[in-house]
Amino acid sequence: MKIIRNKLKAKLSLRTEKDYPIKGIEFIDITPLILQKDSLKEIIEKFVEELKDKNIDYIVAPEARGFLFGTAIANKLNIGCIPVRKKGKLPPTTVQKQFEYEKEYGKDILELPKLVNEEYKNKKFYIIDDIYATGNTINSIKEAIESLSGIVVGEGVVMNIVELNNNKEMFSLIDVNEE
Amino acid sequence: MKIIRNKLKAKLSLRTEKDYPIKGIEFIDITPLILQKDSLKEIIEKFVEELKDKNIDYIVAPEARGFLFGTAIANKLNIGCIPVRKKGKLPPTTVQKQFEYEKEYGKDILELPKLVNEEYKNKKFYIIDDIYATGNTINSIKEAIESLSGIVVGEGVVMNIVELNNNKEMFSLIDVNEE
Repeated sequence: MKIIRNKLKAKLSLRTEKDYPIKGIEFIDITPLILQKDSLKEIIEKFVEELKDKNIDYIVAPEARGFLFGTAIANKLNIGCIPVRKKGKLPPTTVQKQFEYEKEYGKDILELPKLVNEEYKNKKFYIIDDIYATGNTINSIKEAIESLSGIVVGEGVVMNIVELNNNKEMFSLIDVNEE
Repeated sequence: MKIIRNKLKAKLSLRTEKDYPIKGIEFIDITPLILQKDSLKEIIEKFVEELKDKNIDYIVAPEARGFLFGTAIANKLNIGCIPVRKKGKLPPTTVQKQFEYEKEYGKDILELPKLVNEEYKNKKFYIIDDIYATGNTINSIKEAIESLSGIVVGEGVVMNIVELNNNKEMFSLIDVNEE
């Protein structure tokens, strides 16, 4: 892994693992960013700074590592957070929409929960995840929200593995290349 | 579901589902507490109030719904958060300890990640989860931390299903009975 841009001042102690979860992949473990209070604090602050004037109604965060950032940021912005869950985790009657997506290694089905006393239509959403790799998770969530006539005002991640998606417009705090 | 005590002023819009995930269980969906900004804010505030003078080093939060509260509370306390992960989610070389526990419906294996440049020994931990049912998740995490000579100063949950554990000492914001 090579860090090509880093907006955080806190010391990073990222850990990598070769051939995990499958051969040929170098997995980047962002757990240290949560374990260490300085980086956790700075990540939340940087997102709040980026988002505070965007009039967002909901942060949208996919299971499981997106949860680590979604509610913390939503709470600081004084808005709600929508947990995007893996299939089978939400009670069936609370599911608003189910959709499939292709991961870097494997397929998965995600579900958006029903909101409380309101619809997705015309609400403003911002999608947050830990890592942007192929981009399929975030793209599939965006499509699902838009299919409900919701407005996705943006997406952001803690880390963008740029060479996997070549999307340099993505808001991210740390840009890396595998290698 | 019957609410027998509630420390939150925000309107609760809890959803329940009968016979989910298996027959005979009435599942309580806490998603609305996250979706709605008032309850999300109040949950974080109540935990911060409870924990701010306890000199905790780390919040410990189990995958996946514990993540929704762990980092948000840790961030407000200016400490780190330890995500307790399901088996296979942490790169093998970053695992500090693996342990099994029995859930209300099924078994699972959890893993504690290695800390960064320090040991669990003599550090102070507070375990947070969404729901306290049988208590097995939190108890198994407590045992795992103590086996590493860490000090578990307490545990807290958003909701305690009291009749399943009869533990009225557990710090919780909402106490309910199934029924």
